[in-house]
Amino acid sequence: MRHLMSPLDFSVEEVEQVLDLAKDIEMNPKKYAHACDGKKIATLFYEPSTRTRLSFEAAMLNLGGSVLGFSSADSSSASKGESVADTIRVISCYADIVAMRHPKEGAPMVAASKSRIPVINAGDGGHQHPTQTLADLLTIRSLKGRLNNLTIGLCGDLKFGRTVHSLINALVRYTGIRFVLISPEELRLPSYVREDVLDKKHIEYKEVTRLEDALPELDVLYMTRVQKERFFNEEDYVRMKDFYILDKKKLELAPSDMLILHPLPRVNEIAVEVDDDPRAVYFKQVQYAVYVRMALILTLLEVKVC
Amino acid sequence: MRHLMSPLDFSVEEVEQVLDLAKDIEMNPKKYAHACDGKKIATLFYEPSTRTRLSFEAAMLNLGGSVLGFSSADSSSASKGESVADTIRVISCYADIVAMRHPKEGAPMVAASKSRIPVINAGDGGHQHPTQTLADLLTIRSLKGRLNNLTIGLCGDLKFGRTVHSLINALVRYTGIRFVLISPEELRLPSYVREDVLDKKHIEYKEVTRLEDALPELDVLYMTRVQKERFFNEEDYVRMKDFYILDKKKLELAPSDMLILHPLPRVNEIAVEVDDDPRAVYFKQVQYAVYVRMALILTLLEVKVC
Amino acid sequence: MRHLMSPLDFSVEEVEQVLDLAKDIEMNPKKYAHACDGKKIATLFYEPSTRTRLSFEAAMLNLGGSVLGFSSADSSSASKGESVADTIRVISCYADIVAMRHPKEGAPMVAASKSRIPVINAGDGGHQHPTQTLADLLTIRSLKGRLNNLTIGLCGDLKFGRTVHSLINALVRYTGIRFVLISPEELRLPSYVREDVLDKKHIEYKEVTRLEDALPELDVLYMTRVQKERFFNEEDYVRMKDFYILDKKKLELAPSDMLILHPLPRVNEIAVEVDDDPRAVYFKQVQYAVYVRMALILTLLEVKVC
Repeated sequence: MRHLMSPLDFSVEEVEQVLDLAKDIEMNPKKYAHACDGKKIATLFYEPSTRTRLSFEAAMLNLGGSVLGFSSADSSSASKGESVADTIRVISCYADIVAMRHPKEGAPMVAASKSRIPVINAGDGGHQHPTQTLADLLTIRSLKGRLNNLTIGLCGDLKFGRTVHSLINALVRYTGIRFVLISPEELRLPSYVREDVLDKKHIEYKEVTRLEDALPELDVLYMTRVQKERFFNEEDYVRMKDFYILDKKKLELAPSDMLILHPLPRVNEIAVEVDDDPRAVYFKQVQYAVYVRMALILTLLEVKVC
Repeated sequence: MRHLMSPLDFSVEEVEQVLDLAKDIEMNPKKYAHACDGKKIATLFYEPSTRTRLSFEAAMLNLGGSVLGFSSADSSSASKGESVADTIRVISCYADIVAMRHPKEGAPMVAASKSRIPVINAGDGGHQHPTQTLADLLTIRSLKGRLNNLTIGLCGDLKFGRTVHSLINALVRYTGIRFVLISPEELRLPSYVREDVLDKKHIEYKEVTRLEDALPELDVLYMTRVQKERFFNEEDYVRMKDFYILDKKKLELAPSDMLILHPLPRVNEIAVEVDDDPRAVYFKQVQYAVYVRMALILTLLEVKVC
Repeated sequence: MRHLMSPLDFSVEEVEQVLDLAKDIEMNPKKYAHACDGKKIATLFYEPSTRTRLSFEAAMLNLGGSVLGFSSADSSSASKGESVADTIRVISCYADIVAMRHPKEGAPMVAASKSRIPVINAGDGGHQHPTQTLADLLTIRSLKGRLNNLTIGLCGDLKFGRTVHSLINALVRYTGIRFVLISPEELRLPSYVREDVLDKKHIEYKEVTRLEDALPELDVLYMTRVQKERFFNEEDYVRMKDFYILDKKKLELAPSDMLILHPLPRVNEIAVEVDDDPRAVYFKQVQYAVYVRMALILTLLEVKVC
């Protein structure tokens, strides 16, 4: 039995298989409409994340399966002092697969170690969020046609941005990848990613502080939210949050086939006027996320559809 | 693609079609048990309303479809600052139809303008609640046999009562409708309904301050809750809330075939002793609300059942 | 139409039928996979209990049915002042069967008196929790092969422990049952159980204050959580909570075929090191709880599967 804790749990070949399956699901949804009949996913969300939770639920429902779970810790046994290890053993009696979001890093790993059913990490603190990364990869591969020979701009909160770190780790396994890291000094990519991943693997990258300087050379621009909750004080947040806002004017500097991705929710880092630009694919990304989660559920449950 | 924002979005003919379909569903539930197989409704409730939410969910489940969503804003992305416009674009990737309740007037309208799937307004502040109105119409038509030539008493909070305003707007499109408006001075029907709707359309009505004075002449008595949350202070609420309580004694003044409706939840404006009176149809109204929501889902999804 | 309020609502023969059905479900799950197609359970949880709620939901989903409901009072109409009696009449229009958890004793009984569909008490305050008891009985019968001639140790909070009182009431209907009551003086079994049930029915029991003294003679050890919320002050809780912790060392005193049950959630009254002992069956108990709830749903809905 396999779990998915980190995007790196899958080899490049395995990732390709999941993305291929997701593509087939996109093309032939009816073929998969009953693939998980009688199966159940438990969505255990110890912190709220509507978008991610409903994406997993939509994925399972699209496969003919059903859903149970909770959407915040308040309504869970956690408030009575039950450990994650015990909860997962209970849930193993109720469901066939689990998607777990937890504010603490490593909680899904603890769950996986005691679980009798596959566990998917649906985000653990600032740590990992592998299905977001798979969705990012599927979006890029579907709309660019490749995952190699790309210049990727990463913009915003590169220090705390979990999705950014995961995406870097996933992309460095492909050839010809260049990064342009766009952030204020205070939110630079941490050295444990910059040095231990990029430098160590001899990945080409540069750091810039102005979005305008990066745009002309990008194949993909990955925007991220400046999350208020990651800041120590309101003042720092207010000072920095507007530094990296993408609008129509800035976008004139970008190539006509550049993709704009965003893990959502967006606050104001992408102006609403950008939404109608054909390069803006962040809502398509949401759709790809459903397909990739469907593919992942099928893969972990070892369901074959002919 | 159509949405339902206000009871007036549908013409009288279209309303009749929905009510006819609801009637057929009541008579032949099995015929519709798989009409929405593989389809999903998203219930996006930015404020809790158990009765309305579960009514939509029951409706979709009765049609063979499935459900995802959230029951309060706490557990939604709204708390991370996501706009309704963005949320609906995300949800458009997850579901086939949406029922949205929101404390702000107009929020479902914003959602509809950006949605790729039909949006049903499930109540927006003190503004509109069109499926409640459709349920009211179905209840009256089913149990009275007609929607014209009726004297309708509206009792309680006519100032803030959203369901009352919607019902008036819906009924003035039929012929021979008379209203008796029963409320304390402080909670009178506002002039934008009294003048702009009733007077303008030359609809006969009178205003009374005692429930007893109205009862003898009514075909339908529509009771409403005096909602605590609409008042500025506790004192005003306490002073007024008991003015308009229907009990067995008052009910002796009413015709034997008068219907008593209530949008629920009831607090104490109808004494429990009234529940067993055959004229009390407010729990039947709940059942009709499920049928009408089933009919509405089928209509907006353009699902035909033969 | 029948409800389930207390474990004693069913005769011994009826309990046997439910347990037999649960056993058949365990052996032939596929046979029951569509037994409740098109049927709905409403889980009305006025206080959170993830484990119990999800157990009912898993049970209904395993039978092919579907689920609607709420997981805490905050998101229910209760906050608008609706009575349980009114809520159940509304829910009767939405679902085919109800599982209700309520902090107030007797609330499910009120619901049952007004309901048009079967109501299962899923825990009412410190009062009754009949499906937990049925799960306990099924676990013991399945793993011991009998429900008579057993020495049962009940350990922990015997004063407030609802599950303990229910289990005692259920087991005294079998022959050859002995109890060993293991608790601190402050949390002794209350006299209304000790005298009115055990003494009155001439059931053999003894009270001990040390878990070690009881272990050697037990067929079944039923551990319970010392619930913080039952205490008047933190100090009393801290002083007592660690008195009755089962660990590997204590377990050396127990027979090799003794079963360890626990209604969960566990806090620290059973050391994690005990989990791998073959006598620890509290997670199997969770699985049996699903089977017994499936059997109960079928029984109350009068669904026959051939």
